[in-house]
Amino acid sequence: MVLLSSQINSFLSMQTRVTSLFGIEVPIIQAGMIWCSGWELASAVSNAGGLGLLGSGSMYPDVLREQIRKTKAATDKPFGVNLPLLYPQISDHIAVIIEEGVKVVFSSAGNPKTYTSLFKENGIQVVHVVSSSRFALKAQEAGCDAVVAEGFEAGGHNGREETTTLCLVPAVVDAVQIPVIAAGGIHDGRSMAAALALGASGVQVGSRFVASVEASAHEAFKNTVIQTGEGETQLTLKELTPVRLIKNAFYNRVKEAYDKHAGTEELSGLLGRGRAKKGMFEGDLVEGELEIGQASAMIRDILPAAQIVHQMMTDCRVTLDRLSAIR
Amino acid sequence: MVLLSSQINSFLSMQTRVTSLFGIEVPIIQAGMIWCSGWELASAVSNAGGLGLLGSGSMYPDVLREQIRKTKAATDKPFGVNLPLLYPQISDHIAVIIEEGVKVVFSSAGNPKTYTSLFKENGIQVVHVVSSSRFALKAQEAGCDAVVAEGFEAGGHNGREETTTLCLVPAVVDAVQIPVIAAGGIHDGRSMAAALALGASGVQVGSRFVASVEASAHEAFKNTVIQTGEGETQLTLKELTPVRLIKNAFYNRVKEAYDKHAGTEELSGLLGRGRAKKGMFEGDLVEGELEIGQASAMIRDILPAAQIVHQMMTDCRVTLDRLSAIR
Repeated sequence: MVLLSSQINSFLSMQTRVTSLFGIEVPIIQAGMIWCSGWELASAVSNAGGLGLLGSGSMYPDVLREQIRKTKAATDKPFGVNLPLLYPQISDHIAVIIEEGVKVVFSSAGNPKTYTSLFKENGIQVVHVVSSSRFALKAQEAGCDAVVAEGFEAGGHNGREETTTLCLVPAVVDAVQIPVIAAGGIHDGRSMAAALALGASGVQVGSRFVASVEASAHEAFKNTVIQTGEGETQLTLKELTPVRLIKNAFYNRVKEAYDKHAGTEELSGLLGRGRAKKGMFEGDLVEGELEIGQASAMIRDILPAAQIVHQMMTDCRVTLDRLSAIR
Repeated sequence: MVLLSSQINSFLSMQTRVTSLFGIEVPIIQAGMIWCSGWELASAVSNAGGLGLLGSGSMYPDVLREQIRKTKAATDKPFGVNLPLLYPQISDHIAVIIEEGVKVVFSSAGNPKTYTSLFKENGIQVVHVVSSSRFALKAQEAGCDAVVAEGFEAGGHNGREETTTLCLVPAVVDAVQIPVIAAGGIHDGRSMAAALALGASGVQVGSRFVASVEASAHEAFKNTVIQTGEGETQLTLKELTPVRLIKNAFYNRVKEAYDKHAGTEELSGLLGRGRAKKGMFEGDLVEGELEIGQASAMIRDILPAAQIVHQMMTDCRVTLDRLSAIR
């Protein structure tokens, strides 16, 4: 479908509690993913009207500082940083975020109580990623401005309870008063409309943006993502930190270890260090950890991030129009 | 919310490919579940405008015949039979279905090629339950009139690939030309609207109808379902037939067996025979198998089936109106 730019513009805005919260034009958040989301991706998504996030979990503090500065140089629109709260040099990261004047932090993998008030005192909006309505309530109590409700189908690290996006989002929406952003399995306009139907005020999109021109992921990983089919990812390593992986040679070794009843220590040794970098950033498709969501099965092309945003919004509007015509 | 009956009526119809296919008023199919869905439930759902299904997997052929006759006596609206194709006395069941003039069969757990043409020759519509778009294509090739795309969050027996409803439904919709019915996690008007957004033409609802007045499940099981919280079900026994269970004492023994690296034979011995009946029909909450979907976490009351249908339709319309107001 070819769209005139006037048509594109008319599609390209949507008002929800999430767009008001961040002062953005469309309720699409690009997930801050390790090894995939540096300044090129984050600024491209922000420039397209969404909210780009830097994935700080794979950056040293000085790299994060540089990435923030590059993002600010590339966009004058809002952007944020994803911060895994279990990051080893967390204090350094927090100092960089505050010093560099970042306005939005998406925190994950840890207790939102610990740092939220510090961020809020520094004028930073805080959104916490949760996998249950119990954790969502804790995030709200900690003073978070919104939560990301991330389901079982999401890529990367994941909740232990395996609640899917379809079941999680309405439960979280019913549990909290702050806006809810849906994540996990959302990659196109239909799934975005479904998330809005469930009561979410926006979506966080990961896998679809891995297969973008601007993602910092290795080309070999991007090409693998667009070839990944249904049933070719698996949530695994629950004894360590649960993670959804493409079933490559490394994953098969993990599976063999399970088949031989490996204990936590053995699994931990097998995982070792640096496998995510090896797979996603260095493109080692055999030995690397390849983190991606189930949505990868429907992603078949590597596109500019702005085009992904445009297509999602256009298709979401088409879907909403289709729904409003149901009699 | 109190509704005037005129309001209820105005909400209570919706036209989709699924309502046209079966000649029903609302695109809600009540899943044919073992030990839960006999003639009282199926006829109540059909009388409310949906499509009620008898769960023949837990019936002897003569019981099925009696149940079909009672359903016909209780409703003049369309209804169907769910038929697990691995049922041991499958030929007897098929004979009963044909002899009694049943018009709709939902088949599951087996190859749709084997019996679909026989049913079609006898004027019976066939819908097959699938967990992947590959199986959906096979069902279409076998001549099925529609497919149920059932996600990981669904109760009872389930696909091995763990694809969730949010990821499965659009993939199946893109793969086949026949109508797609979404199942797994759908229990209210929001999740129904989400399924329509994903491209489904109707929904199949299981767990919500287990907690209905008319379900033949034991009261103790129904009461357990409405107390089940988030994360309190688990897909397990993948080495046998994957099944989603409430984490009761029996489930904990299964988990212990896994922790001790039990093999398939040991698991099979532990499961034994008749555990589903014991749990769901006889109400043995300790030793029984309690099959239910993740949606149970949001089901908090036992309602008449007609009220469930009314509420889903009303809330679905409210959701569609909310979506159409997004600017």
